[in-house]
Amino acid sequence: MFERVALIGIGLIGSSLARGIRKHALARRIVCVDRDPDHVAIALELGIVDEATTELAAAVRGADLVVLCTPVGTFVGLAALFASHCASGAIVSDVGSVKELVVREVRPLLPANVHLVPAHPVAGTEHSGPAAGFAELFEGRWCILTPPAGCDETAVARVAALWRQLGSMVEVMDAAHHDRVLAITSHLPHLIAYSIVDTAVGLEQSTQSEVIKFSASGFRDFTRIAASDPVMWRDIFLNNREAVLDILQRFTEDLTALQRAIRHGEGDRLQDVFTRTRAIRRSVIDAKQA
Amino acid sequence: MFERVALIGIGLIGSSLARGIRKHALARRIVCVDRDPDHVAIALELGIVDEATTELAAAVRGADLVVLCTPVGTFVGLAALFASHCASGAIVSDVGSVKELVVREVRPLLPANVHLVPAHPVAGTEHSGPAAGFAELFEGRWCILTPPAGCDETAVARVAALWRQLGSMVEVMDAAHHDRVLAITSHLPHLIAYSIVDTAVGLEQSTQSEVIKFSASGFRDFTRIAASDPVMWRDIFLNNREAVLDILQRFTEDLTALQRAIRHGEGDRLQDVFTRTRAIRRSVIDAKQA
Repeated sequence: MFERVALIGIGLIGSSLARGIRKHALARRIVCVDRDPDHVAIALELGIVDEATTELAAAVRGADLVVLCTPVGTFVGLAALFASHCASGAIVSDVGSVKELVVREVRPLLPANVHLVPAHPVAGTEHSGPAAGFAELFEGRWCILTPPAGCDETAVARVAALWRQLGSMVEVMDAAHHDRVLAITSHLPHLIAYSIVDTAVGLEQSTQSEVIKFSASGFRDFTRIAASDPVMWRDIFLNNREAVLDILQRFTEDLTALQRAIRHGEGDRLQDVFTRTRAIRRSVIDAKQA
Repeated sequence: MFERVALIGIGLIGSSLARGIRKHALARRIVCVDRDPDHVAIALELGIVDEATTELAAAVRGADLVVLCTPVGTFVGLAALFASHCASGAIVSDVGSVKELVVREVRPLLPANVHLVPAHPVAGTEHSGPAAGFAELFEGRWCILTPPAGCDETAVARVAALWRQLGSMVEVMDAAHHDRVLAITSHLPHLIAYSIVDTAVGLEQSTQSEVIKFSASGFRDFTRIAASDPVMWRDIFLNNREAVLDILQRFTEDLTALQRAIRHGEGDRLQDVFTRTRAIRRSVIDAKQA
């Protein structure tokens, strides 16, 4: 499907992509570049790529597909560095959780004969690094493409075909819309999980031990989410600021209403809310996303 | 271990208790009472109890162990009704998620020759009703006992032995302390999950469908928690008001600090928080609660 795929960053997603591309024989040659020499060494040792380097230009040169697999905050700086080394007709894609930034800031940096097809595989685990990846990570999961207006249709079709081969279901949408939907489904849940776990960090030591001991009663699920990669999530919040702040404002209003209902002993109001949220769970189950 | 166990309420926990007591042969006779005739019929049909009735006095009479397995908001009213029917020397226990209320309000209603041993099995699922229970629900989970000062030690030991036979690890603590710890580990996480799912309920229909479609990116985990029994949770919040409002205030402060860091683009601050929360996850894993 591709001659030479260059993966920029070989963490959880990059290394899963390398494994998946190799498993399904989707590229003749897989190259990765990472600024961390340890990641380069591990990638070679695991045998998941044909070449691994810390030299960006060397990796990108001659690649017909370049995929940014680093935290979104690095995209603009990296694109500025590798843009001039892209082969004519190459496709540049990414796996970032924020998409408007890619269309708005990465695209202008690329030569006219290079096609930008931003992608977001909605998949991941709380683990990080090249050893954490696995070829099946994307199976049965959504991959959202947000091609900018006027994007080459063949390039979009090739990226879509790649993700389908990896087992994903592909959806195409506008980048700004993507960022609003993901702010609710992913960014706000992560922010809240980080926040509640941080509240526990602030407790006195003896209480904290008990919180950990009895964490299976609900808190545990939040600690898993709040163990996700700190730099990746820092960059997501900084680069999807408006959508996150907007949905956070709505959440705070809803939480304040519940707080007030508890304070004033308004049992009916609490029960109404707790009953209507059950319907959403049923929809999630019906959509086979549970 | 017991001659006659009376379970008041035969929902998820009550029916799991019935199944567990039978599986491990911990009582000669298991009786349940439920105000819902459907629950009574299902319990008999499932064959998980020896007797099932809607008559409170009939169930309690002659029992050497009575366990309240209804939402905590019903405890006081029920105790007032059944107290005079308790056998001399009987133990009254419960499975409620709030414990100070039990010691403060249920105890004064019981005759002097009846022993109150409040218990909280820290276990559950998002499903409700007698058909949802299973004997293994309590295995490997904590059960917290909060006997009031001066409580009969033999009675405490018998209740502890029951839970250990069901596979639980038993911890004894002060009721007020229990309520503060559980406010963090369980009540706040549930309140927040209900709230974020309710925020999604308030979105326009088209966005809501997409939230469900892409819910695997974090939101999904919250919908599971927010599908828990509405009446049970209403009662928990109404009866652990002070501790919940206190920890909610701390959480809101922490969330506001994160919100401010996002608004002002303070990446270092975000990364610091997201890094220190990882340590809590490691502690949860080390405590074998993950």
